[in-house]
Amino acid sequence: MTSARRPPPVEQPAGAEPPDEPAALADRIEEVTARWRQALADLDNQRKRCAREVEQEREAERARAAAAWLPVLDHLELALAHAGADPESILTGVRAVRDQAVDVLARLGYPRHDEVGVPFDPARHDVVSLVDEPGKPPGTVVAVVRPGYGDAGRQLRPVGVAVSKPSE
Amino acid sequence: MTSARRPPPVEQPAGAEPPDEPAALADRIEEVTARWRQALADLDNQRKRCAREVEQEREAERARAAAAWLPVLDHLELALAHAGADPESILTGVRAVRDQAVDVLARLGYPRHDEVGVPFDPARHDVVSLVDEPGKPPGTVVAVVRPGYGDAGRQLRPVGVAVSKPSE
Repeated sequence: MTSARRPPPVEQPAGAEPPDEPAALADRIEEVTARWRQALADLDNQRKRCAREVEQEREAERARAAAAWLPVLDHLELALAHAGADPESILTGVRAVRDQAVDVLARLGYPRHDEVGVPFDPARHDVVSLVDEPGKPPGTVVAVVRPGYGDAGRQLRPVGVAVSKPSE
Repeated sequence: MTSARRPPPVEQPAGAEPPDEPAALADRIEEVTARWRQALADLDNQRKRCAREVEQEREAERARAAAAWLPVLDHLELALAHAGADPESILTGVRAVRDQAVDVLARLGYPRHDEVGVPFDPARHDVVSLVDEPGKPPGTVVAVVRPGYGDAGRQLRPVGVAVSKPSE
């Protein structure tokens, strides 16, 4: 394989027939053809290796992303297990789990977005409703109906928002 | 690029000089060398393309795995939002979210394992404690301390278990 990567030799082997003799030229054709075939075989192997590598990396990435959620699930179950003893404590526990889940998404590269009062931006916002808000400039996000996750280019979903109507 | 994939022509072009003339042989050397160089260039491009493809697929897989959790988080927040009105309802809601989270892991390829009463298996179990259980054969899983996720070969984590001691 490495032989195929070597640049073409520019000189004929020493002690061989004169380089312009037909027999020497035929040898040279054979040599270059062999290297060409080797390069084609390397190309084919490289394609197969790439397909395997993509599959392995996909699998590894799925495992990494899934494993990040195990502590969230563990804490959720812990909150449930303690709920019998003190029903009020579950609220505190579940709020902490929610924060942890938001943090997992941020660490995977998808920070939460739920900003209110910003101008509507079609790249980040999905309009769920239009509302009369006389005090607000038209096209302002007045409420978040569903938080969004991720930034431009790697967005899991846009923020679902209520937007102020143009004033009449 | 496709030209490099074509098998080496076995015949000389019609109407050219006799194929064993030095000039024809030199032309042939030049042609095969050009194809060899093209194959090497293709190989190089294929390597670069593969690295890009791996990165894209990794990113896409992370997004898929993360997006699967959004409904879980949404339902968790819904349960919290309703907790004020009816503190008891949060337990039902959070139990449903827990089941949903377990289901997400299963659909990502990591089914939950928390079987009790099975023989200890070092490939699937992580012994957290050894307990006296006179009624059980030694080496039996008598309690699950921490559920495991995934099967052999794609395990996120083993089941944390309490195992019965050899009887004395």
